[in-house]
Amino acid sequence: MLMSFAPRSLMDEVLDGPIVGGMLDDDFYKDTMGQYSHRFWPGVDIISGMTNRSKMERLAEIIRERDLIDELDAAQARRFTKTDLHYLRGTNEYGERMFAESYLLELEKLVLPKYDLSVKDGQYDLRFMGAWLPTSRWEIPALAIVNELRNRAILKKMSRSERDEILATGILRLREKIKTIRKYPGLTFTDFGTRRRFARAWQRYVVKTLAEELPGQFLGTSNTEAAKDFGVLPMGTNAHELFMVVAAILSARGDYPLHGSHNRVLREWWELYGYGLSIALTDTFGSDFFFRDMTATQAAEWKGLRHDSGDPMEFAEKAIAFFQKHGLNPLDKLLIFSDGLDMNMIIKLWEQLEGRIKRTFGWGTLLTNDLGIKPISIVIKVIMVRLDWHYSSGEWIGTVKLSDNEDKHMGTTENITRYRHVFDYTRHFREECRV
Amino acid sequence: MLMSFAPRSLMDEVLDGPIVGGMLDDDFYKDTMGQYSHRFWPGVDIISGMTNRSKMERLAEIIRERDLIDELDAAQARRFTKTDLHYLRGTNEYGERMFAESYLLELEKLVLPKYDLSVKDGQYDLRFMGAWLPTSRWEIPALAIVNELRNRAILKKMSRSERDEILATGILRLREKIKTIRKYPGLTFTDFGTRRRFARAWQRYVVKTLAEELPGQFLGTSNTEAAKDFGVLPMGTNAHELFMVVAAILSARGDYPLHGSHNRVLREWWELYGYGLSIALTDTFGSDFFFRDMTATQAAEWKGLRHDSGDPMEFAEKAIAFFQKHGLNPLDKLLIFSDGLDMNMIIKLWEQLEGRIKRTFGWGTLLTNDLGIKPISIVIKVIMVRLDWHYSSGEWIGTVKLSDNEDKHMGTTENITRYRHVFDYTRHFREECRV
Repeated sequence: MLMSFAPRSLMDEVLDGPIVGGMLDDDFYKDTMGQYSHRFWPGVDIISGMTNRSKMERLAEIIRERDLIDELDAAQARRFTKTDLHYLRGTNEYGERMFAESYLLELEKLVLPKYDLSVKDGQYDLRFMGAWLPTSRWEIPALAIVNELRNRAILKKMSRSERDEILATGILRLREKIKTIRKYPGLTFTDFGTRRRFARAWQRYVVKTLAEELPGQFLGTSNTEAAKDFGVLPMGTNAHELFMVVAAILSARGDYPLHGSHNRVLREWWELYGYGLSIALTDTFGSDFFFRDMTATQAAEWKGLRHDSGDPMEFAEKAIAFFQKHGLNPLDKLLIFSDGLDMNMIIKLWEQLEGRIKRTFGWGTLLTNDLGIKPISIVIKVIMVRLDWHYSSGEWIGTVKLSDNEDKHMGTTENITRYRHVFDYTRHFREECRV
Repeated sequence: MLMSFAPRSLMDEVLDGPIVGGMLDDDFYKDTMGQYSHRFWPGVDIISGMTNRSKMERLAEIIRERDLIDELDAAQARRFTKTDLHYLRGTNEYGERMFAESYLLELEKLVLPKYDLSVKDGQYDLRFMGAWLPTSRWEIPALAIVNELRNRAILKKMSRSERDEILATGILRLREKIKTIRKYPGLTFTDFGTRRRFARAWQRYVVKTLAEELPGQFLGTSNTEAAKDFGVLPMGTNAHELFMVVAAILSARGDYPLHGSHNRVLREWWELYGYGLSIALTDTFGSDFFFRDMTATQAAEWKGLRHDSGDPMEFAEKAIAFFQKHGLNPLDKLLIFSDGLDMNMIIKLWEQLEGRIKRTFGWGTLLTNDLGIKPISIVIKVIMVRLDWHYSSGEWIGTVKLSDNEDKHMGTTENITRYRHVFDYTRHFREECRV
């Protein structure tokens, strides 16, 4: 009598299933940012590239190049289906018909550009170049591919039973999280873990389980496909990318336009989505600048702020003071924490800010990649931008990210120095990225 | 894109798969004892019955009677297949062609007798009556059915995620065992957990995993079907049943034949199987009697002894002294421990007896039913026997088991008193059965 064993079916998916699903197997903010770039910056090209912060992990010696190429090719071959477009067209939670028909038409014909892959010092050098909208859509699938191929390589060296131990560990750690979160009935959170997921199948298991076990507390997922398949809310607004690209473009026009770029993005975003998606990311050029730059009107109008680097409690205190300074009640405002959260940090922030400000949590790596195999830290960031011939000389311009953690600074030394000056960035805080 | 989740496939088997497989989904000692009864005691009928030692667990309120009847009927409908018989005919590890053709012919037409089911005080009263050979084959499948239906009832009240936690817990506990056992390279053991298995699918997962992870240390399983399917050795010799039935029959002829019954079984067993299966079960009427009764020749000839009740170290000391008294080197003799073992006890016995006597372990409940749901303790024992009209009046005679733990005594008070006297049973040790 033949039968299957163990967590075999999920393990089969992890070992051999598709690493990337359809076009919606991506972060929802790519859908929302995509419409922003389509509407306001249609002439922008970008170059983005992958960086492996876990340098000791020589990925080119772990992942076979053939496997990487196969998966990237499969991701590149994806197209938006009718169903994908119906789902986006029907998304109404953040505003009436938030996606314009012209944008959906653009998505319907969207094709990811070719990638450029080489090997340097045992690492893969992976780069993407092309129009902003389609090129930007490489980030999440490419990261998920590299992460999952690396995890598969580790799993494939294990015995069947050792692999089962990994999955069992993941399940018990997820159960611990569920039990802990139930003790804090008001606490809500969202899955932000697509890019660093252990595996696609595992993220889907986590989302499905949380949807079943923590209704009302698990709000949804940044993964549009998982949200669609498991009937929870697709979550997300925007990323550093938005501010970095617009800043780089405007930096060519001088320091003043550069300084104004951040607020310009906020204004254009508000114009596009209004209150529904009005969560401001605060640390692209440092939160000190952010709190100086956001206007009283914006402070009053916007739903809340997202924290993504630096000390979260210090940030919360500054945010509370900021709203109070503008005569606003912080209890009407929402903070979203999303920087390398673990269960302890979530509980600590939840408890310490009780009665002071609304807060919720965008939980990434340690939600979708907590199975006892240490995750690696890879990122794909826009490195350079240019405007096409309509607007400029076509020179490539380097991007910069400052963040509230100097370890997360990005850009050439020269550009970072310029941005620090322009945005009056004076903080000195460096912390190794946790996850 | 549809896919499966979690330990779903194993869980599906646990929740909905067959609870009992083919006729070989039974303990191997039923095959070996069956040949003994067929050869030496063809005229014996027995009545056996189930006892739930976990009285607080009101099984008739947990398991639906309809489900129990369905499963018992399915077990009753099983027959030996050609493949089953080929496998038994080919079993050669304990002696050349150990199963005689006449016995295999008997098995080919073997049908389990009808069962008798009623409910008393929230418990199922389950009884079996008929010829010894087929009736005896109810014990293991009936116990496995009641255990698994009870566990399914518990699982079905859980959420999907809670059920996954159970399986994940089982997997991690199994992994712990594997890692511990690897630290003691000479330590060998066998799965004896069919009757108390959490589920059939789980036992098969455990056996398959151990066969892969601990070759050379995991010797095999008492489950003939699992041994056949996963290519390990079917293990087992005989049970209390053998001594109890023969004792009861001979008790009708007087105290002297009763006293001699135990050694008669040993002699007949040796005649049938010789050295290959010469492991003597020691506690049916107390090990004190056993060590007085076994002859010097038997001590020299037999491969070893099985411990199944009372303090295991005390037993080992008595066994070592016994062999030494007969001028034998205990290091040529094997002890098999099989009484409610856990990992600690196994390691303790392994280490403390190092260099003193050979030993191995028949690991039952805590090997195949260690997933965080407390197992119940149910047994099916022969209660009464009779000889058919050829030999006797056809009166039913009660059986007795004394064991080295008074908590495990079985039989009417009157019969126990008689047996204690006949076998000069003087010990007073009572311990609640652990598992």
